Amino acid sequence: MSENEFPHSFLTGSDAPLERRRRTGGRGADRLRKGPGNSKYLNLVNTMEKSTVLTDDALEAIHNASLTILEEIGMDVILPEARARMKAAGADVTPGTDRVRFDRGLIMDMISSVPSGFTMHARNPIRNVEIGGNNLVFAQIASAPFVADREGGRRAGNQEDYRKLVKLAQSYDIIHTTGGYPVEPVDIHASVRHLDCLSDMVKLTDKVFHCYSLGAQRNLDALEIARIGRGITAEQMEREPSLFTIINTSSPLRLDGPMLQGIIEMSSRNQVVVVTPFTLAGAMAPVTIAGAVVQQNAEALAGIAFTQMVRRGAPVMYGGFTSNVDMKTGAPAFGTPEYMKAVIAGGQLARRYKIPYRTSNTNASNTLDAQAAYESVLSLWALTQGGGNFIMHAAGWSEGGLTASFEKFVLDVDMLQMVAEFLKPLDVSEDALGLDAVREVGPGGHYFGTAHTLARYERAFYSPILSDWRNFETWTEAGRPTTYDHANRVFKEKLNEYERPPLDPAIEEELDAFVARRKAEGGVPTDF
Amino acid sequence: MSENEFPHSFLTGSDAPLERRRRTGGRGADRLRKGPGNSKYLNLVNTMEKSTVLTDDALEAIHNASLTILEEIGMDVILPEARARMKAAGADVTPGTDRVRFDRGLIMDMISSVPSGFTMHARNPIRNVEIGGNNLVFAQIASAPFVADREGGRRAGNQEDYRKLVKLAQSYDIIHTTGGYPVEPVDIHASVRHLDCLSDMVKLTDKVFHCYSLGAQRNLDALEIARIGRGITAEQMEREPSLFTIINTSSPLRLDGPMLQGIIEMSSRNQVVVVTPFTLAGAMAPVTIAGAVVQQNAEALAGIAFTQMVRRGAPVMYGGFTSNVDMKTGAPAFGTPEYMKAVIAGGQLARRYKIPYRTSNTNASNTLDAQAAYESVLSLWALTQGGGNFIMHAAGWSEGGLTASFEKFVLDVDMLQMVAEFLKPLDVSEDALGLDAVREVGPGGHYFGTAHTLARYERAFYSPILSDWRNFETWTEAGRPTTYDHANRVFKEKLNEYERPPLDPAIEEELDAFVARRKAEGGVPTDF
Repeated sequence: MSENEFPHSFLTGSDAPLERRRRTGGRGADRLRKGPGNSKYLNLVNTMEKSTVLTDDALEAIHNASLTILEEIGMDVILPEARARMKAAGADVTPGTDRVRFDRGLIMDMISSVPSGFTMHARNPIRNVEIGGNNLVFAQIASAPFVADREGGRRAGNQEDYRKLVKLAQSYDIIHTTGGYPVEPVDIHASVRHLDCLSDMVKLTDKVFHCYSLGAQRNLDALEIARIGRGITAEQMEREPSLFTIINTSSPLRLDGPMLQGIIEMSSRNQVVVVTPFTLAGAMAPVTIAGAVVQQNAEALAGIAFTQMVRRGAPVMYGGFTSNVDMKTGAPAFGTPEYMKAVIAGGQLARRYKIPYRTSNTNASNTLDAQAAYESVLSLWALTQGGGNFIMHAAGWSEGGLTASFEKFVLDVDMLQMVAEFLKPLDVSEDALGLDAVREVGPGGHYFGTAHTLARYERAFYSPILSDWRNFETWTEAGRPTTYDHANRVFKEKLNEYERPPLDPAIEEELDAFVARRKAEGGVPTDF
Repeated sequence: MSENEFPHSFLTGSDAPLERRRRTGGRGADRLRKGPGNSKYLNLVNTMEKSTVLTDDALEAIHNASLTILEEIGMDVILPEARARMKAAGADVTPGTDRVRFDRGLIMDMISSVPSGFTMHARNPIRNVEIGGNNLVFAQIASAPFVADREGGRRAGNQEDYRKLVKLAQSYDIIHTTGGYPVEPVDIHASVRHLDCLSDMVKLTDKVFHCYSLGAQRNLDALEIARIGRGITAEQMEREPSLFTIINTSSPLRLDGPMLQGIIEMSSRNQVVVVTPFTLAGAMAPVTIAGAVVQQNAEALAGIAFTQMVRRGAPVMYGGFTSNVDMKTGAPAFGTPEYMKAVIAGGQLARRYKIPYRTSNTNASNTLDAQAAYESVLSLWALTQGGGNFIMHAAGWSEGGLTASFEKFVLDVDMLQMVAEFLKPLDVSEDALGLDAVREVGPGGHYFGTAHTLARYERAFYSPILSDWRNFETWTEAGRPTTYDHANRVFKEKLNEYERPPLDPAIEEELDAFVARRKAEGGVPTDF
């Protein structure tokens, strides 16, 4: 069982012909770095008072239990270099084993140097994202092995669908960053997949992107692609975090080699690490939500502490991904009441440590039905009220993360925009209170024609993408479309309207040359 | 445009043959007053810290603007007796008109005697509901002119569907009370409809019910039916509120005759009045949410103040029903970001006045699709975080309230239960923290077989009614059912399982005799 944030590189892929890259020629393209036409969903801030499910005492009890786990049981750390670094930092490494125990003082000392906020830099500065505090950032679905739309059904991921999903991520400002491959394109051989995929991230979007930690070479290639994309030096990039990686612990209580290597490569260069245990209560974690959160917290703190052992002050996020399983089948469940509590508890812990908080917009439905919507909105409720800063899988996640759904992507965009509108401060100016309009209309009148209404009606309310508010008769004449039908139409329209964001031709040339050279070198070794 | 809480008595109805009442004979049935088998959703309490969208200053600005409206513009009060009572209480009645203006001191004085909480008494005491404070009470959909299920489609309301919906309300503990007629049974003549419908409320449920305020005689009949149902004297009933009525203002700034009469009949007998303006921003209220809430507050305060002019200390609730319209078509919209803010602002106002707060679970979808779910959960989010005490239309509302949907009823029950589970305090006992289980499993293990899991797995998590968590293959083999399919199956199963709650045969006899007598008298006069 996995969070499905790992690329499914174990799936056999084959080299596909590369799309011929269009060269548009010419240098000096600062003029091309235009902002999006409609930027009202950039830089979201959530000033809503955060909800809690833990009293101060309960929060401390969970904190202390986590530290007891790290001190007494410890973690299995499956990389000699990582164990050596941990030992050097003062951890207790049992010789001849993978086991590392961490004194609670050591953990808290390491945690103390984590920045409470930072900026992730995009190649288009208007797309920079602020992480931490009250900031709220949405990332697209990542790492689904399957992709689905209504006509094509559910199928294995491929490059064409990968590109379409990346284009959709570019098409909406509410999607602040991509987050890994929205679907795993198994038609590209795993040895060079990261080169094609990340090159596409630079070309098809101007947003911050993610690199998988699957061995140092992939990290290094990703770092170089991010640097080229921004057109900066390695030194500037080290000052300006521009790339992020998700580090999943292997619950319970293990950190695998590629993950540890990812922390070393990324943190040492001041890039962003998101440490996320995937603690399903009753499977890889205790069956109680409190127990699962204790274990989540222990694993997250261990990973976060390691980032600071690699480099003090390196940017890192606290990831929470505790949910429950269906105890009848063992299937993971998402967007449940238990998930909501875990999300809010995770937010309390992250705020206790003053570390930016990553969580997810989840559901377990196999299709775009009411369940897909209610589990997602319950997730959004919890992560908004719980103070999530960085929301993975915010749009497109279907089937518990196994499928990237084109229609669900649009549904989620609409719901994320509604959350953003909800979070916008209510206008309570004298003018908004509208006493003059009430005086004008008086008892028994109507507001449609008043000056107060006419001056505002066009922008007064959020205009949803999908909600069908037509009356029953008109809706029936239109063939009784459901949200699924509307979403199916909209994603295709949006893809038709897609335009590549401007990219300095010199950057594109350098990027293509890098990818070509690395391919000529064979990419990264694989066993197939 | 109306809230659709009014019975649609303007629809032509015809007398339908009355179902032959079964008499089960015998007296003395206290033994029959059994509690429900599974009572975990009775007496819900919401201890979550309440969210706010208004600063203290903004709250006062809205409060003051409302009082300015009542002082300066006033309300049209379309009932001479009500104007006379208001005048006697100190209001400024303009002779020869309906206009009444209220000094802000008078309003605040009247508001001061409203009880901050009270009990509504059901014929089965285990169904009593606590109103106010942190209590959370869910009422079924009310007043839809249409009813729908998948097979039967959308059709005008009738007695058979009315009874089915009432039976469903009885079948789930999370539905704490019915709330008006779930659908308007237009096949019963309007002159006697209330007699049949309320008699059914007593027989088919043991929960608190509602009476429409459509003239004093209907109120008086309802009061008598509620008294008979409880088997108590009029004096006891006056001490124990047992019946509630929704009073909709006729926005903007009007109180109609039947509504005012309803307040007089109900408040004078210490029964429960829920004053609810239906202030659609841009239609019957200013186009700004703040302005619409100002007007809502003015109208609510006027109605609430009148209850106290009728009888100091009479139980009353502050109703909020501010939403926006689709400015392209004028159609009402529900479960929108604007609705969410209005719900939370209304909660702040109600808490400022220490009056129990009534709000609603809404959506505008014409079918059971993702929209129906996301608009509903956005409503539930706002009303839970905003501190709603009494939630009308909590289950079954479809098509902006025009249709009572059998499938939506079940979907809502599931979602309400999820809200209840979310609100349950998280167990953070030593045992729940699970350190011993973590010690037992250790790094790389699994929790399925541990003693900690085995002791808890059966009741560890909420088991949803509808969510389909099967994997894609199993779900495909099952024919790819959606939430709609599951809800369709479940409501029919639930109706098959329905059993009448025990009722003292003497009470049933008295009830039938009353209804027969009132029918013989012609019920209430109508103009058709």
